[in-house]
Amino acid sequence: MPEQITLYTAKICPWAHRAEITLEESGLPYKRYEIDLKNKPEWYAPKVNPASKVPAIAYGGPDVSPDTPSPESQKIAESGVLIELFADLSSSPALLPTDPVARARARFFIETVTPLFAGAYRGFIARGEDPQAIFKAVEVIQGLLPAEGYAVGQWSIADAAVTPFFARAEVALTNDLGVYEEGKGKATWAVLETDPKYARFRKYLHDLKSRDSFKKTFHPEVIINSYSKQYVRPVVQAHA
Amino acid sequence: MPEQITLYTAKICPWAHRAEITLEESGLPYKRYEIDLKNKPEWYAPKVNPASKVPAIAYGGPDVSPDTPSPESQKIAESGVLIELFADLSSSPALLPTDPVARARARFFIETVTPLFAGAYRGFIARGEDPQAIFKAVEVIQGLLPAEGYAVGQWSIADAAVTPFFARAEVALTNDLGVYEEGKGKATWAVLETDPKYARFRKYLHDLKSRDSFKKTFHPEVIINSYSKQYVRPVVQAHA
Repeated sequence: MPEQITLYTAKICPWAHRAEITLEESGLPYKRYEIDLKNKPEWYAPKVNPASKVPAIAYGGPDVSPDTPSPESQKIAESGVLIELFADLSSSPALLPTDPVARARARFFIETVTPLFAGAYRGFIARGEDPQAIFKAVEVIQGLLPAEGYAVGQWSIADAAVTPFFARAEVALTNDLGVYEEGKGKATWAVLETDPKYARFRKYLHDLKSRDSFKKTFHPEVIINSYSKQYVRPVVQAHA
Repeated sequence: MPEQITLYTAKICPWAHRAEITLEESGLPYKRYEIDLKNKPEWYAPKVNPASKVPAIAYGGPDVSPDTPSPESQKIAESGVLIELFADLSSSPALLPTDPVARARARFFIETVTPLFAGAYRGFIARGEDPQAIFKAVEVIQGLLPAEGYAVGQWSIADAAVTPFFARAEVALTNDLGVYEEGKGKATWAVLETDPKYARFRKYLHDLKSRDSFKKTFHPEVIINSYSKQYVRPVVQAHA
């Protein structure tokens, strides 16, 4: 019988979302516990993650309630560490290929795409930077993707690692949430949705979003609610 | 017979050094090719690594000269990806434990210690920031280390990942190389070398530096030569 896994997560957080998608794909049984990042329980840092971030897990030990973590379970944090752990724990289904070069390609995809895409879309929505960076990131992603399928063919943790950022960008831009000029979010996403140049990315995103592991773990209303408060467009003064 | 490995590296670069230490520990046969980072061969970016950085490898394919890489070999970059690949390729000696939780601890050590320590010592030598950040990083490291041995007990890629940064910090500080006030580098390192509070870190660093894989791949004269040109102390005007 597998060791118990308790996942401490938050619907808003893309890093936590990586772990949640991977657990759903893994078939490993787990308990999910939502941490309110704006009002964290006082036991969370001392008993689960000293860095006080999500995601983190309690692994093994007795089957206790998530809000009274046992000192006997292992506490492990960091999304990149956790998705590799779930791949190590789950051989069927395989969350990483067995071929060493394919595993390296999956890890290279994570290392390259995450900062590139997350940096580009956050620069746009949080600081009003040029959305061309998003198109450039998408071109790099398309250069890494095989002709069909996922990052390394079969679905892997490489796909779990990047999906949360794509999904949040789509929700932000299609709802025009960001500090950029009104209409610019919708216009930017419309290019990704219609320009033939981005067809491979579109297909990839469609494949990612079609998976049950994504549908079950993504909560767009939480993103909309949070981003609309966090990224407030400056009011433009009309000429008198 | 294992596939050929050609490592493109540079003595100055801590990221490349991670890969070189790991290859030495792995027992995998490899060829080493030094890239002059200030005058890169023109074939390097198009034929090996489009990002034009080290480390990178050519893996498999025909046994060619490193300066005429074959299109038939796999080209793989990024130090974190490469050290995991070498661990996947080498089961004896094991470069990562087989236990999933111990593997996760090794990866957490890499993810935590690298940015913390590298950020602290570079802030000090390149921008003259407070060296207290180095002591704080060392305290975190000591909190992660077991009572004896390496990051997760037996030597692993976790140790390969951090050794290059510790070694460069020691060379820089003991030679007083940095933009900080004269004498402050030596004084800072002296605290790490004498304060009983840092005994566990001292022992760990001693163990890391005792390994043949380190001795064979570390070139302090290259660091001294480069840093003394790169990090130039501002000239203080004497009072007239």
